Parts: sequence; structure tokens; C-alpha cells
Amino acid sequence: MDEFKDFKEHSVAEFFKKNRQMLGFSGKIRSLTMIVHEFVTNSLDACEEAGILPEISVEINELGKDHYQVTVKDNGPGIPKTHIGKALGQMLAGTKFHRYIQQRGQQGIGASACTMFSYITTGQPTKAVTCHNGKKLTARISMDFKKNKPVVEVIEEQDTEESGLTVISEYKDVRYERSNYGVFEYLRRTALTNPNAIISLLEPNSEKTLFPRSIEENPKRPFEIRPHPLGITTHDILEFAKHSTETRLSSFLQNAFSRVSAGKVSELRDLAPEVNFRKKPGDLTWAEAEKIVEAFGKVKWIAPATDSLVPIGQQQIEASFRNIFNPDVLVVTERSPKVYRGGIPFVIETAIAYGGGVSDANKKGELMRFANKVPLLFDAGGCAITETIRSIDWKRYNIRNFEDEPIAVLVNVVSVHVPYTSAGKQAIANEEDLMAEIKFAVMEASRGIQKFISGKRKANEIATKKKVVSRYIEQLSADLASLTGEKKEKLSKKLSSIVEDKYVTMKDDEPETTERIEEEKDESEGEA
Amino acid sequence: MDEFKDFKEHSVAEFFKKNRQMLGFSGKIRSLTMIVHEFVTNSLDACEEAGILPEISVEINELGKDHYQVTVKDNGPGIPKTHIGKALGQMLAGTKFHRYIQQRGQQGIGASACTMFSYITTGQPTKAVTCHNGKKLTARISMDFKKNKPVVEVIEEQDTEESGLTVISEYKDVRYERSNYGVFEYLRRTALTNPNAIISLLEPNSEKTLFPRSIEENPKRPFEIRPHPLGITTHDILEFAKHSTETRLSSFLQNAFSRVSAGKVSELRDLAPEVNFRKKPGDLTWAEAEKIVEAFGKVKWIAPATDSLVPIGQQQIEASFRNIFNPDVLVVTERSPKVYRGGIPFVIETAIAYGGGVSDANKKGELMRFANKVPLLFDAGGCAITETIRSIDWKRYNIRNFEDEPIAVLVNVVSVHVPYTSAGKQAIANEEDLMAEIKFAVMEASRGIQKFISGKRKANEIATKKKVVSRYIEQLSADLASLTGEKKEKLSKKLSSIVEDKYVTMKDDEPETTERIEEEKDESEGEA
Repeated sequence: MDEFKDFKEHSVAEFFKKNRQMLGFSGKIRSLTMIVHEFVTNSLDACEEAGILPEISVEINELGKDHYQVTVKDNGPGIPKTHIGKALGQMLAGTKFHRYIQQRGQQGIGASACTMFSYITTGQPTKAVTCHNGKKLTARISMDFKKNKPVVEVIEEQDTEESGLTVISEYKDVRYERSNYGVFEYLRRTALTNPNAIISLLEPNSEKTLFPRSIEENPKRPFEIRPHPLGITTHDILEFAKHSTETRLSSFLQNAFSRVSAGKVSELRDLAPEVNFRKKPGDLTWAEAEKIVEAFGKVKWIAPATDSLVPIGQQQIEASFRNIFNPDVLVVTERSPKVYRGGIPFVIETAIAYGGGVSDANKKGELMRFANKVPLLFDAGGCAITETIRSIDWKRYNIRNFEDEPIAVLVNVVSVHVPYTSAGKQAIANEEDLMAEIKFAVMEASRGIQKFISGKRKANEIATKKKVVSRYIEQLSADLASLTGEKKEKLSKKLSSIVEDKYVTMKDDEPETTERIEEEKDESEGEA
Repeated sequence: MDEFKDFKEHSVAEFFKKNRQMLGFSGKIRSLTMIVHEFVTNSLDACEEAGILPEISVEINELGKDHYQVTVKDNGPGIPKTHIGKALGQMLAGTKFHRYIQQRGQQGIGASACTMFSYITTGQPTKAVTCHNGKKLTARISMDFKKNKPVVEVIEEQDTEESGLTVISEYKDVRYERSNYGVFEYLRRTALTNPNAIISLLEPNSEKTLFPRSIEENPKRPFEIRPHPLGITTHDILEFAKHSTETRLSSFLQNAFSRVSAGKVSELRDLAPEVNFRKKPGDLTWAEAEKIVEAFGKVKWIAPATDSLVPIGQQQIEASFRNIFNPDVLVVTERSPKVYRGGIPFVIETAIAYGGGVSDANKKGELMRFANKVPLLFDAGGCAITETIRSIDWKRYNIRNFEDEPIAVLVNVVSVHVPYTSAGKQAIANEEDLMAEIKFAVMEASRGIQKFISGKRKANEIATKKKVVSRYIEQLSADLASLTGEKKEKLSKKLSSIVEDKYVTMKDDEPETTERIEEEKDESEGEA
């Protein structure tokens, strides 16, 4: 038997090099959009974390057939020399992966994936100009795939008063196009949900577009939270306990997790009497940790901190949607945070625009998906958002066929951890709790437009009836005039005003018979 | 600035622990199916590679609420002590990732992912009993997630005459159910496409099912091939060249890639005169390698070796489909291999069954997806196969609405590298060449059933006409009898046979007016 002579170990970089489609690098147009997406989301995250109003410029230059240079420049804090290599040339390295905070990036893969894609298609390293803490560094970065380690060549170092990061990289096997899946549409949607940023785009044909800033301050910072007890597995507790510096289990639990007070610890004590809460966290056994998780499940907890999550906001979505679509009717939901997998907090924002500019733009049944304000342009078919929209019985809301009506739906999933289906981060996995909440949110918004649509249909019916009745006024008033001797004009005027009154009242009294409240009692506010 | 105090490096095991949905571990029923899937595909691969007729038994025991033990036992070659830890407890390690051969597994992640999932939900190591080369080893295996390294505890070693691997592991947060997404359906479909295997299942309710072997020999072995020049990037050439022991570029090219002969090298020489084909492969520059790739694109190559791929086979699919569905009509395509991304060979097999047992089973518009004979039960929405099926204009083939007709479509993608959308391997990425070929294959099969359906409709029409005409025979023969004096019975018989003849002929002469050949000239057989 020699099957095992070929047994080898591989790095995560080799894995993604062979499976680049898992990073979203499949198709020429999509690949270019993915590159811009990775750098722009990193820039937005970096600026906002440093409290800087983002200014991001994107430049795409065509170097040859399916061969482009991409430059993304931001005014963020830059990256220090000690970390620039790992930030751009090592997968699964960074500040984001392990933090429990709402961010656009959450893997520590994206930028390094671009460095990889650049290198395997052009052989060129990625050039970075980073201004951080008074130092300006220019360097070329590539990767050792076998080791998943960066290779950094420093070109120049000097003092500077600026700050920010510029990344200049070159790709083949990509293509620029102004399609629904291209860079332009990606940035347009990014601007829609990030009104605090100035984003500029220079296209290969030298056309320059500025997506202006419409709000002069950054959104409230989401803050890092400790995990909620309801989202914790036995294995998590043991991992945290192993690295804890606390001397007692009771204080460890209060410090490692949110919402665990001294009072809650004594509840836990009663629920798990076999566990010694005075022991050192490092000595915790699997059986004990399992008892604690069981007890967690029985205690009434306050829900995760709601201000750890920062949605786009009702006002902002309204402003943006009116800007783009100027629809006949627009409903935006504002809902409370929920949890999935037991304790990972998330918020769903939805908006539905109907008619008006949506019809004019000839948009039909358009779904705009976002996660932490980042537009998801690809993999729609495999996304929990799409699947939920498909599962809705639109007829209930007077939408005969979603695909054929002038309707645009926005769904934004905000969370400290978005469960993407793959490292390419373009689709959200079918987590039950998430899908249920998306459904409720969309249904809530749908009820809002339903009234409008049924009102509009009714108004049409009333107008038709009124027209029919009005036809008889002339004849009737002439007949009445000859019968009674009254003046025809007077009678005609009176009859008209009766008809007018009748149909105005009908409009006002329109009963809301079509309203149906189907949502289960799912509001887990306050106590979770 | 202290954003970088939190900068950390992570292992691929930590990544997948946090993003277990990318491995397919989302949802309780799906998670259990994924576990069985990983072990069964490994067993089938191991048996077939060792030339052993596979016998695989799967046992699911319920230990508590959402808590199960899974045992998968095979009669394969087993795994030696030196490799058992890495095979079950280290991600991206194995014999499969780097080989250019049609296999079910291709990542070296699956089994270790199960070990991870077992450990984080139950704290239990995975138990392995491996009989390899006369030695029987029993061991417990877990993982150090931070390092992505296995932790092996040897329990017992002894001599044996048996061979095979048994893996016994325990999971929480999973559930057994006989649904369309459960273990039973997964194994049923596996049996459908792997008739050389005996597969048995013991369900938690102690019900035992045997999926018997219907072919007494293993399929022809697919063999490992060298990459085809048309699938090669500049970076690939340089990587291969760096590790080559050849002394000259010309011989390196002939040995590293398939279809490169001495004659082809001299063509390459003419196309890339600036490259010195006598230089050492290790000295090749990016620019030179790029010229070679350009020249590769201009040479006429023989297509990739067709026998490197082993489809299920027309006969076998027919037998299986008749077994399951006994349809009114069944069409199975047998097409030549194609390449995607320039040079990765693949074959598409399709089958369409219509009517008969498909109607009886009340199946409507069913799509059965497979990749290298492995059933794909999940992520249908994000899969290139589903998207292709949706894009077909079924009305052309007399299918009014795919979802409403008694039709079952099988698509099997066979390749040395299947481009999955994520590490969970349940959906295929939207590679253009793949999708085009899937479409042609399904269209080819559709034309076959179209004839049948239009024939059936015509037969119905003829039967109706015949019935109408026959109604007049009695009256006509009575009238003719009184006019001519002939016996009514004789006339009636004669008239009947005239009608009979007329409509039999109509059936035979049925012109095939509905046949439309739409496929472009895509047959790239012989020369690619």
C-alpha cells in the first residue's frame, strides 16, 4: 500500500489559490468588483474605527485586454510597517476575525486574497503606500503561498504629515463593465448605505463620478461586546476559561460574558449545584461547563446590548430611496435587535418602495441585499435573503407577481458576525432565526404598501363609478327641470355636488379590510 | 493609534470553527447529513482507489435530544498509524488536494471538520479503528484548533487479518429525520450512482435498510493526468518549473503537461522566439512564462485524455432510473469531455425521465444534482446546475411549466476538479464553460423527450378523431346495406378496417416537425 506516500499538508493560501471561486473570483466582471469591494470595505472600516470621515477614491486603468490596474486610496489611519505585510499578504491575519463587533470585514482574508489574485495572474506584487503616525512607507508585497506568509520589499520610508493607505495592484483575467454586477453599481449601492463617505470613481474611459457625502458625521460607533450567555457553547466556555486570568469561576463568568451579574451567578449556582463556582476557571471540566450552559438556558437574560449594533437608520434609508427612486410609496421598518444561534445579536432593516420612480426606472421586483451596509451583488440564488423574499405570499399584500410589479425591496442584515455561506461573503447562510426575522420585517413593510396599493385600486374603482354616475347628471337635470320648472343649471350643479360629496366620503371612510396581522408574538425585547 | 495591538493570526481550523456554516454545518438535519456525507465519500474513494468493492455500513444512534452517535465502517485499506491523526484531525492535509484526478473528496477538510464539529458540540474525541497492512489500531483523535494539529491518543494496537476503517463519533445540535434532506435520502441517491457499492443504514429507530450492489465490479479507475496546456496560468508554469528536476525547459514542458510533444515544442519555439527553450526550468522568468502561456493559446492541442474521467455511464443511469421511476420515457445523454478555465477536463451526464412512475410518485420538476457521483442535496439555489435548468426555455420541448410536469432531471458533473462554491461542497460555481455544456446536455436530452411528449399528444388527438369517425360506422353500414343489399355486418367490418388502417398509418408517418437543433457547433472533439 503506498496511497500515503502522497499525503501532504497545505496552507490556507494554497487552498484558496486552487479554489479562488470560493473567494468570489469567478468570472471577469465579478472578479474586478470583488477586488474593489475588498479594498473599499477595509477603507470604510479603518476610517470609521479611527473616527475619520471617509474619503475614498477608486481608479481603474485598462492596461491591456482583460488586464487592469486598480488603485484604492483612503484617508484612514494607515497601517504601521510592522503589520503592512501581514495585512496584505497573509490570510487569516488581522484585527477583525476574533473581535465581537459589527464590522464590514470579519475574516482577515479579503485584501490578501487580492494580493494572491494579482500575483497569480500578473506575477506583480501589490504596491502599498501607507502613512501612519507620521511615517510614510512605500512597499511591494507578495506572498509565499506554501507558508501563507507575506514577502515585503520596502522601497522608501520618509516622514509625512498625511495619513491614509493607498493600494495599487494589477490584475489579468478581469474586465471592467458598467453592468449590474460591475464596480460602478457596487459603489453606487455602497454610497446609498454609507452617506458619511465621499467615494469617487475614475473609470477606464477617464469618466469621473463623485458619490457625494450627504451626512457630515460618522454614524455612532458600534462597540465591541462580550458574548451573550445564550450564544455560548460548552467548548466556548472552556476556551475562554483556559485563557482567563481570573481566580474564581464566578468572577470569570461576570467578566467574560455580557449580562452576567452577581445576582445571575447566584441563580446559576442554584441551577447547577454540582459546579464549584469558587474553583479556578482553568480547572473547569467539560461536564461542569456543560452544566453551566444548561443553566444559562434556564435563566432569564436581558437581551444583547442593542447599541452594539448600528443600522443604516430609517431616516437615512428614506432619504436615499427617495433620492434614487422617488416612489409613490415608501415604507421603512425599524425593528429591535434579535439573536440567532442562541445569542449572536443582529438587526434587520427593510425598505419597500413602490410605483412612481420605480416604475419610471422600469425596475420590477428588485431586491437589494446588504450585510453591515455592504452591498451583496452576487450569489443571490444561494442567499437566505433571496430565499425569504421568494417564500413570501405576495398576493396577500396586493402584489400579484413580485417579478412583474414596480417594487424595490432593500434588506440590510446588521450583526457582530454575519454567517456568510463562503469566504467570498456574497450570500448569507440559511440560519432559521435570521430568516424568520427577515420575513417578519419584510411582511411588516409589505403591510404598509398594501394599504397604499389597495387604496390606489379602490380610488380607481371610485373614479370609474363617479364617471359613470356623472354621465346621467345632464339628462337627469334636464328631465327634472321640465318636471319641476326649476332651472336646469341649478339642478345640474346640485346633483354634481351630491355626487362629489358621496365619492369624497367613500374615500375617507375606506375601511382597512385588507390589513392582516400575521406575525407571531416574536418581540423578545427586554427579556430574551 | 493602538488598533494594531489586536492584530492576530489564526489557523484554518479556527476559521472554520467560527464559520462552520461554510462547511455545511448549518441546521440540525443538514449537519447530520453532512457528517455522513464526509465519511461515506471518503470510504468510497478509499475502496475504489485500492481496487476493493465497497461495503459501507452507517449506524445512527440517538443518545439524547439533538444528540447522536454516528458510526461509519468500510472495508477499505484503512489508514496507517503514521497518518490517522492528520487524516481525521488536521484540516488541509491528505492525499487528495494536490492530485489531478477525479475523486469525490478534493480538499482534505471534510473528515477533520467532523472531528471539529464533534469536539465543539460534545467535547468528545472521535474514535477510529483502522486495520491497515495487518495492524489494527484503536485511537481517539481530537484537534488543537489554534495550531490546526491533531491530538492522538492510542488505545490499543494488535495484529489483524482484516482491513478497513471504522469511525465512531458523537454530535450534539444535529437531528435525524427521514426528509428530503436527511441521511436516508442522501444514501439512496448515493446508491443510485454507485451501483458497485453495498451500503447499509441502521436508523435510530433500529430500522435497517440495505441498498444492494447491482454491479459486481468497480468502475474503471479514473487515472491521474498531467495538466493540459490550455488550463495553465503563468504562475502555474513558474511553480512547476521551480520544483522541476529537468535540465531543459523543452523537456520540462513535455513532462509536466499533457499533450506536449517534441513537435509541439518546436511549434512553441516558433511562436515564442524570445524564449530560450534550452535554459534550466528553475531560471524561467515571469515574462518568459507569460510568452509560453500565450503560445499555448495559439497551438492546436489534442483535448485532455478522455479516459481520465469516469462518468456513471448511460447503461447504469438507465437501469437506476427505470428502477426508481419506471417512467414512460427516459433519455440519457452520453457526451464527450470538454474543458473549463481553459484546460480542466470535465464531462456532463444528464438523464431526463418523464411520466409513468414519475407521475405516480407525484414528483414534479425534480432536479437531482451530482458531482463526481456524489449527491448534492443542499444549496440548490446557488448552484450552476439549478441556474442552468432555470434558464432553459422548456416550452420549446413541449414542457409547459417545468415545476408542474412529471419530469425528473439528473445532472452529474464529472471532473478532476469540481469548482464548488464553498468548502461545504454542495453547489457548483457559475463557470461559463460548465454552464454552457450543462445546458447543451440537458437540451439534448430534452429533444428526446419532446418527441415522446408531442407523440403522446398526437396519439391522443388521433384516438379522439378515430372515436368520432367510428361512431358513424354503424349508421353508415346500415344505410349502405339498405342501398346496396350487402350484409350490414360485412360493410361494418370493412369500414372499421379502413378506419383502423388510416389511423395506424397516421401514427407511423408522424412527421417530426417539432425537432429543432439549436445547439451551436460546440463539439470540440479531437482538436481542442
